[in-house]
Amino acid sequence: MYNTSSSIKIVPLGGTPNVHDNMYVYESIDDIFIVDCGMGFPEVGVSGVDLTIPDITYLKDKQSKIRGFVMTHGHEDHIGGLPYIIPQLRDNIPIYASKLTAGFIKEKFKEFSIDTKLINVVGDRQPITLGRFEVKMIPVTHSVPDTKHLIIKTPHGNIYHGSDFKFDWTPVGQELPDIQSITRAGAEGVTLLLSDCLRSEKEGYSLSEAIVEDSFEREFRGIENRIAVTTMSSNISRIQQALWVAKRSGRKVAFVGFSIERNVKTAAELGFLKLPPRLIIDKRKIGTLPKNEQCLIIAGSQGQLGSSLERIATKEHKLLSLDPGDKVIFSSDPIPGNEVNVYRMIDLLSRHGITTSYSDISDDLHVSGHASSKEIMMLMAMTRPKYVMPTGGTHRHTVQFSKLAGEMGIPKERVLTPENQAIVIESGGVVHVGETLELKNVYVESGVISHASEPIMDRKLMFQEGVVVVVFTSNRERQSLDIDVIPKGITKQLDESLLSSIKVALAQVFKSTDITRDKLYSKDKISKEVSRLFIKYIGKNPVVIPIIVED
Amino acid sequence: MYNTSSSIKIVPLGGTPNVHDNMYVYESIDDIFIVDCGMGFPEVGVSGVDLTIPDITYLKDKQSKIRGFVMTHGHEDHIGGLPYIIPQLRDNIPIYASKLTAGFIKEKFKEFSIDTKLINVVGDRQPITLGRFEVKMIPVTHSVPDTKHLIIKTPHGNIYHGSDFKFDWTPVGQELPDIQSITRAGAEGVTLLLSDCLRSEKEGYSLSEAIVEDSFEREFRGIENRIAVTTMSSNISRIQQALWVAKRSGRKVAFVGFSIERNVKTAAELGFLKLPPRLIIDKRKIGTLPKNEQCLIIAGSQGQLGSSLERIATKEHKLLSLDPGDKVIFSSDPIPGNEVNVYRMIDLLSRHGITTSYSDISDDLHVSGHASSKEIMMLMAMTRPKYVMPTGGTHRHTVQFSKLAGEMGIPKERVLTPENQAIVIESGGVVHVGETLELKNVYVESGVISHASEPIMDRKLMFQEGVVVVVFTSNRERQSLDIDVIPKGITKQLDESLLSSIKVALAQVFKSTDITRDKLYSKDKISKEVSRLFIKYIGKNPVVIPIIVED
Repeated sequence: MYNTSSSIKIVPLGGTPNVHDNMYVYESIDDIFIVDCGMGFPEVGVSGVDLTIPDITYLKDKQSKIRGFVMTHGHEDHIGGLPYIIPQLRDNIPIYASKLTAGFIKEKFKEFSIDTKLINVVGDRQPITLGRFEVKMIPVTHSVPDTKHLIIKTPHGNIYHGSDFKFDWTPVGQELPDIQSITRAGAEGVTLLLSDCLRSEKEGYSLSEAIVEDSFEREFRGIENRIAVTTMSSNISRIQQALWVAKRSGRKVAFVGFSIERNVKTAAELGFLKLPPRLIIDKRKIGTLPKNEQCLIIAGSQGQLGSSLERIATKEHKLLSLDPGDKVIFSSDPIPGNEVNVYRMIDLLSRHGITTSYSDISDDLHVSGHASSKEIMMLMAMTRPKYVMPTGGTHRHTVQFSKLAGEMGIPKERVLTPENQAIVIESGGVVHVGETLELKNVYVESGVISHASEPIMDRKLMFQEGVVVVVFTSNRERQSLDIDVIPKGITKQLDESLLSSIKVALAQVFKSTDITRDKLYSKDKISKEVSRLFIKYIGKNPVVIPIIVED
Repeated sequence: MYNTSSSIKIVPLGGTPNVHDNMYVYESIDDIFIVDCGMGFPEVGVSGVDLTIPDITYLKDKQSKIRGFVMTHGHEDHIGGLPYIIPQLRDNIPIYASKLTAGFIKEKFKEFSIDTKLINVVGDRQPITLGRFEVKMIPVTHSVPDTKHLIIKTPHGNIYHGSDFKFDWTPVGQELPDIQSITRAGAEGVTLLLSDCLRSEKEGYSLSEAIVEDSFEREFRGIENRIAVTTMSSNISRIQQALWVAKRSGRKVAFVGFSIERNVKTAAELGFLKLPPRLIIDKRKIGTLPKNEQCLIIAGSQGQLGSSLERIATKEHKLLSLDPGDKVIFSSDPIPGNEVNVYRMIDLLSRHGITTSYSDISDDLHVSGHASSKEIMMLMAMTRPKYVMPTGGTHRHTVQFSKLAGEMGIPKERVLTPENQAIVIESGGVVHVGETLELKNVYVESGVISHASEPIMDRKLMFQEGVVVVVFTSNRERQSLDIDVIPKGITKQLDESLLSSIKVALAQVFKSTDITRDKLYSKDKISKEVSRLFIKYIGKNPVVIPIIVED
């Protein structure tokens, strides 16, 4: 029999607060299920790393309890970790997702040669039983179709898992948010609301996706050359609107870019994207049409190095090029941290005489997929939660979210803002912040998963300060000592005074220490002496690599 | 006699297009004068560098022709290069500047122990004779008081040097823009207009500085704890408004931060900042007042590491601290590239329970000091130039500027957008883009000027890929070879297969090459082999440092 006195936990393995790496473990004494399994981007100042994934150490000895994954929507920061995490877990854990989300995951699994038979498509409001938990998916609107919120029945009350959303009453090719189910959940009682908080700083309501069609109309009008539209490759509604406007302006459309081509294919096959007849043309053939009949929908809206648009901008694309007078429409905002790449690409394109439209010139080329403050408050009003917890934002967003909760009359002590902590739901329905989690950064670099943070730290240091290799060739018998100093990445020429000081200091080390016996100790000592002298003479503190050669 | 047939050149030594490093050489056959001498920030992806300065190689053999510097305003990207450039030039070159700009330069020179006697304060509309050139300063408004435009008489016509500005009709503690002089210059004929283009993307007019006072009023209202206001340390008008609001709210003010304290002192002494009596209190004493009587005006609005605000946020400030319930008002926008630092600081402060107000929550806490599109067009209408050239922006800004010029009826061929090129004014008043300039990046690192770009490139590579030291100990007589591979900054454990492949490949190099004789060639060969194997085995291409030890 189920021990009803034991508490339930929600353990965020992607860290809190955090925008990406979404992964929430729901745990009772007997059962675990997991909401989402996203990837993230390395923090600024970490280079050479392709992506980050959640640290699943917590799950390692609990594998038999895992009943399944439930996925809220098809964005990379919610599904992108799966191909790396699934192989680390026990076999045959089922994955539950809506139709389009399942389609995106399937394509991903094929690429990674992971069996797709564990992916289950779940209909709206159909109960998924996961041990003592029961989960239902509720349609909401977001910047990818088929996005769901979750109503989770637990032995200690209901939890509303309000992942990324906005309330869009004129969504494009998406269902309306299911207000009926959301308010009914509120009527039945919600112990805890987890809610998207990313745009909690923004006053009012986010704009509807539908407004972008008019913007596209204006941008296409009177253009006699090629038009290229770039947006996030999962933004199927945006792509739909670009297709309609292209059709009306008498252009054919080619999709360009691995992710956009794959997502479009999946979305069209599953009925989430309507491809007007005779509109789509292969990217290899579109060049044969007159320029004013060409429209490219192309990946690279974040200025990503190696993306199709970037390769066109740098004239490195094998199939396609843009000419002076052509136009690129950026239907996206730079994600914080990407500004430099995006503007570099805009500069590059405009250097080639290509016209660009982007959010700094026209702010109606893109709308956010996240709820602004009033929509967050609306979700609170609908679900009437006892406790709330912001998700999918950074610390400053959780602060604004807490203010909104306060304005909705939720007492401060019922707004939970864990900092890498678990959330505990006690049997009486009391919710509180629990144990602190020991979460490591997990990096994926050239396909390899790495938990080591020391090499990354070393790289950061070498970036700022450079490297010095010190080769220490000694012969104790002959009492000879040869010291070679090889700098790399140091702008200042090393002058004689520094080099001779190093030699004097290291000769001292050689005298006082048996360097062939206490190698580790000697290396440490050499590093310290060399560091000290570099700081003194040139104001830099390079990474020192001491090498001891015994003659 | 002056050779009137020879052309005049404008040579931008800070590069074009460029936001920072402003330095424009005006050159005739006999004379040179220089407008501004700014510093810049290293491009993103360059670390460990403190600042960049213009490359003055062009001036090296022309020193006797230099008649002086004319400075437009006191921002670092217009005056910050002086302490590094002046010592590189011949002695006794005069510097002409408005009163406040001269004051800022003087303080800078004292810090660098540079003689201040060459700094000349020039009044508005007073002709400065610089060989065959004559320059007059015209007051305009900007985010630092006492900003000037320049009307430059040359033997081949007049040039209007419209450096950073906006048209603010309610400036705070600044003179109104001198429309009379600007339009008179237009009536007398302007051959070439150089104009600020940084906000050419923005529709309409920039907001007046005066609106920020109301925002401060709102932000101060009802706060029972400490308030800290942070802004750019040269924004004297902003500081003035903060002082007025602090006074009305019954608070005393302490200035905190080296640059802010220095600028406030200079501006107050020269009459550009009015300090209300008994309002200012020493930062060492403000802590003795009740919290609701304290107001700090503090440096660090860009989240700079080591700034006063950052040290308070990290609890490392020796004198001051902020407590839960205190409030920090960011009266600034993040400069592109600084977003991450700014948001990190906001997160840090809010983690300590400190309330923060910033532009994402309230967009009226800061106004730009630069002209929006309609103000740029207004300047064109006033000066009626034959030719125009955008300055102080990146490529995309120059593209928008060119559009605005087109709308004002200036033909395309008269809009000059050089790309690291000189501008030539022919004797008949024809202006065109001239020779391409060979400009290098000049970095300042720990106070040392460096022209070497290779170490910086190495650091970038080491950041992305890591380092491998390969120690190659050989003894040709004994035919012995010892190979040691020392990785640094590489996340993946090096396995036996990689190490043995390296040993096999390098043994081959050892066999086929006389490594002790052809050291350079051998090192290159070793590097190539090791690179190839690292790419093959772990997908990374580290910087290889080969070390050959002869036994």
